[in-house]
Order: sequence, then structure tokens, then C-alpha cells
Amino acid sequence: MTTFAQTTFTDRLTERSLTLDTRLCLGLDPRLDAYPNRDAWRSHTLDVLDACAPYAACVKPQLAFYEALGLYGLGVLEEVCAAARALGLPIILDAKRGDIGSTAVAYADAWLSGPHAGDALTVNPFLGFETLAPFVDRARQQGGAVFVLVKTSNPGQADVQGGGVSERLAAEVARLGREEGEGLSSPILSSVGAVVGATHPQELSAWRSAMPQAVLLLPGLGAQGARAADLAGAFLPGGVGAVVSASRGIQYAAGLDVAAARAAAQGFRDELNGAL
Amino acid sequence: MTTFAQTTFTDRLTERSLTLDTRLCLGLDPRLDAYPNRDAWRSHTLDVLDACAPYAACVKPQLAFYEALGLYGLGVLEEVCAAARALGLPIILDAKRGDIGSTAVAYADAWLSGPHAGDALTVNPFLGFETLAPFVDRARQQGGAVFVLVKTSNPGQADVQGGGVSERLAAEVARLGREEGEGLSSPILSSVGAVVGATHPQELSAWRSAMPQAVLLLPGLGAQGARAADLAGAFLPGGVGAVVSASRGIQYAAGLDVAAARAAAQGFRDELNGAL
Repeated sequence: MTTFAQTTFTDRLTERSLTLDTRLCLGLDPRLDAYPNRDAWRSHTLDVLDACAPYAACVKPQLAFYEALGLYGLGVLEEVCAAARALGLPIILDAKRGDIGSTAVAYADAWLSGPHAGDALTVNPFLGFETLAPFVDRARQQGGAVFVLVKTSNPGQADVQGGGVSERLAAEVARLGREEGEGLSSPILSSVGAVVGATHPQELSAWRSAMPQAVLLLPGLGAQGARAADLAGAFLPGGVGAVVSASRGIQYAAGLDVAAARAAAQGFRDELNGAL
Repeated sequence: MTTFAQTTFTDRLTERSLTLDTRLCLGLDPRLDAYPNRDAWRSHTLDVLDACAPYAACVKPQLAFYEALGLYGLGVLEEVCAAARALGLPIILDAKRGDIGSTAVAYADAWLSGPHAGDALTVNPFLGFETLAPFVDRARQQGGAVFVLVKTSNPGQADVQGGGVSERLAAEVARLGREEGEGLSSPILSSVGAVVGATHPQELSAWRSAMPQAVLLLPGLGAQGARAADLAGAFLPGGVGAVVSASRGIQYAAGLDVAAARAAAQGFRDELNGAL
């Protein structure tokens, strides 16, 4: 029997989203080539987090950019997570991990438990539904969450995600959500969310309906061309159940100007609220 | 125009495979729960590498097991790579990374370039063909390689890889291979390899034909039930063009006995040679 934690990522995300009136997920994808040196890379990233936190429902570091700096970068990732926790921000680690059996367990150990874990993890389902289970089990036990890639924001996604693959993945996300609602008087937002690109605005209502208990994570705002005004279909009544991430469009809104990053975060927050 | 490196991972793999007469890829997937403490985890993994190297064409650390120990684990991964290099073993980092645009570039920075990089990287193609390009470009420039997941070894792979997805991926791997052969008098093994599960033995000849220039990486020997005798179809004439990985069946052949691990590696090498 699965044990479910009492206070969950989803509860905390929803509470922060409503309290601060924001649906923005702050992406932190720091590119080393934007800085004179790695100390500047580190300190600017922490400064942007601090400045933008009041406008963000959660934070999403993209692991690739930290891995690119080796052990130094992964040490900074731990600092970013500690700072986010101190600011009350739920943390989605954008790692897109996926593997079989004991390897998936090891990834869950790495990123959903232990000292350098986040609260939630993006998961790549290419190896099949069975490979989601170790991540989902761990998230449920820890009060964390997973975000399964269902339909990504890039033009080439259809090479693999077309032909009904995204629809089958959505059905599996919905099934996992129903497992958590069993025996409850009303459905809850589950620990199994989904990544759906904000670049597919005309489909968002359909994905929302297909996965009624899933928190939707929508990347693609700003740099990838999605517009906040087109995203209303992703939300449940009350403006909950989805967050929209922006990364470069905030951190590098005007060079390395932290005040500009803050203003960009505030602007995205307001645009998203205006779309509801 | 793409620059191609002069000495490549594929050349070195082929040379070692023929010189030592082995098609074995030594998987190093150390599970913390098999050890009393992490120092034992570290030293046993390095000892197994040292003992088994004479029987291995290459080594494949599975990153999940190192990430599970945080910064300590990633430090040990660097030690494993340094030791493998000293032993002359080409290194395939089994990371199954995949993401879009600048994020894929950052993963290539992390794992195909720089101080803690391997020679080759496994890549997850779920986000589409376009997302392979940053990895392939880097591998070509560095003389490295990528191994694209085409059809994985686990039973549930068909959830996503069925419906023609694996076949389309194989066609893309073949196309990338042809790019590297252009203008040459005879086809070469390219820097774009493919992962095909050893658990699909009846299909191996077909995958071999579909991707004539790809090195095939076959996981699933031993613990996952594949038998060496069934894998002949994966090889090109001369017993080149493929390596077969075993991990748990070597490292934990008999508890933590390094001599048993060495004997298991020798045994797998001999079984594979017997199948040719």
C-alpha cells in the first residue's frame, strides 16, 4: 500500500499561488557564457532568485546549466535550492530524468530525497509507463511531485510525441491522479503533474480536461514565443492547477540587470493574471 | 560546415575490441545499499574497474548511481573516468540526457567536453530529432560519440517506442551516419550510435541493417535475461560494430568479491566471442 505524505508540494504550490496571486514559475537557467566568470554566474543567479521570489509561485532550476560547471555548478545548485527553501518557494528540478528499474530508483534517491533534492522533478517517459513508477512512488511518500513530459514546447516534438503518444501519456497521468483521489469525497490535485508546452495554446483546454487532477507546467513563455493571454485554458476555476515558466526572459531581460529581471517577473505575473 | 575530429571514440573502441578480442561493455552501476558505507562503495567500484578492464572494450558508468550520492558521488564519477582513461578504456556515460536548444548544448558541455566529460553519452530522443543535433555536433567536433536510445531493453518500452517510433529513430540515426560517410570511398562507423536492448534478439539483424554505420550498444545481458549466444545479429563482419553491456552481473557476481567480478567479466567476454 502506498503511503501518502500529509503536506504536499501541490498543496504548498497552490497556497503560495493564491496567497501571492501568481501563476509564474521562475526558471533559473544560468548560461555561463553570459558572465565574465563563474563567481558572477553564481551570484547573479542567487540575486535574481531573491529579487523575483515575490512574484513566483515556484522556482525551476534547469539542471543542465549547473551540470555544465561540474562539481562547482552542482554545489551552486544546492545553494539555489537552500535559498529557495528559505524564501518559501517550492522547487521543481528540471532534470528530465528517465530510466528503468533500479536506475530510476537511484535518480529518485538523487533528486526527490536527501540533502540536495528538490520538491518536484521533471521526468522523461520515453522508456514507458512502468519507468514512471519509482518516481511517482517516491514523490507520494515524500509529499513531492513529478512532472511527466506529455507534449513539449519545441517544434520537433511530433517526431516522437506524435501519433497518439502524447495522448497515451496524458491518459496515464490521469490514471495515476485517480489513484490518489480514491476514497476521497472530492478530487484533489495529485502528485503527478504534466509538462505541456505553452506554445500549443489552442490545445490547452483539451489537455486540462484530459488530466483533471494534474498540475500543468507550461514552458515556453517569452523566449519561445508563447503569449500569456493565450494560456487561460490551462487553469482550473480559481486560477489554480497550472504554472507557466519563464527563464531567459526574466534572468536576461536586460543584460545582467537584476532590477530588470525583477520587473520582468512582475510583468509576466501580471500578464498571466490578466489572462485568467 | 561541421568539423570532424581525426581520432574518434569509434576508432578507439574498434581498435581495443579487436586487440583484446572483446565485445564487452563493462557497466559500473554501484548501488549504495550493497555496501556498509560510501567509502566501500567508492573503493569497490574502482577495484572492479581495475580487475575487469582487461576483458572490456569500453566502460559505461550509469550516472544515476553517482548522482544518488550527491557531490561525493559525482566526485567519484570523476575518479572512475580518470581511472578508465589511465587503463585505456573508452568511456560511455549512461546519462540518457535530452532537452531542447541551449539546454541540450549545456548537457553537451557537461558530459562531452571539459574536465569531467566522457568520450560518449547516451541520449534520450523523446523531444525530437532536432534535439539530437547539439549532442551530435559536439561529439563530431570532439571525436566523441552519442548513443541514441532506439529501442530499450525493458518490457514497457512499447508504450512510447511502439507504433513505428523506434523505426523512425533508427532511420534518423542512419541518416546522421550517412552524413559522416559523404565523400569517403567506403562507409565508416559514425559517431552516432544506437541503444538497442539485447532482450530483443530476434530483431537485432534488422536493427543492424537499418543502421549500417552505427555502433550498437546492447544492454540487458545477465540480470535482464538476455543470452550472449543470441546476439550475433548485432555485429558487423569481423565482430565489430557492437558492444554488449553487463553491470550487476559483473560487479555483484558474488557479493562484493572482486575476483568473482573479474571472472564474470571474462566469462561474458568468452560467451560473446563464442556467439560470433
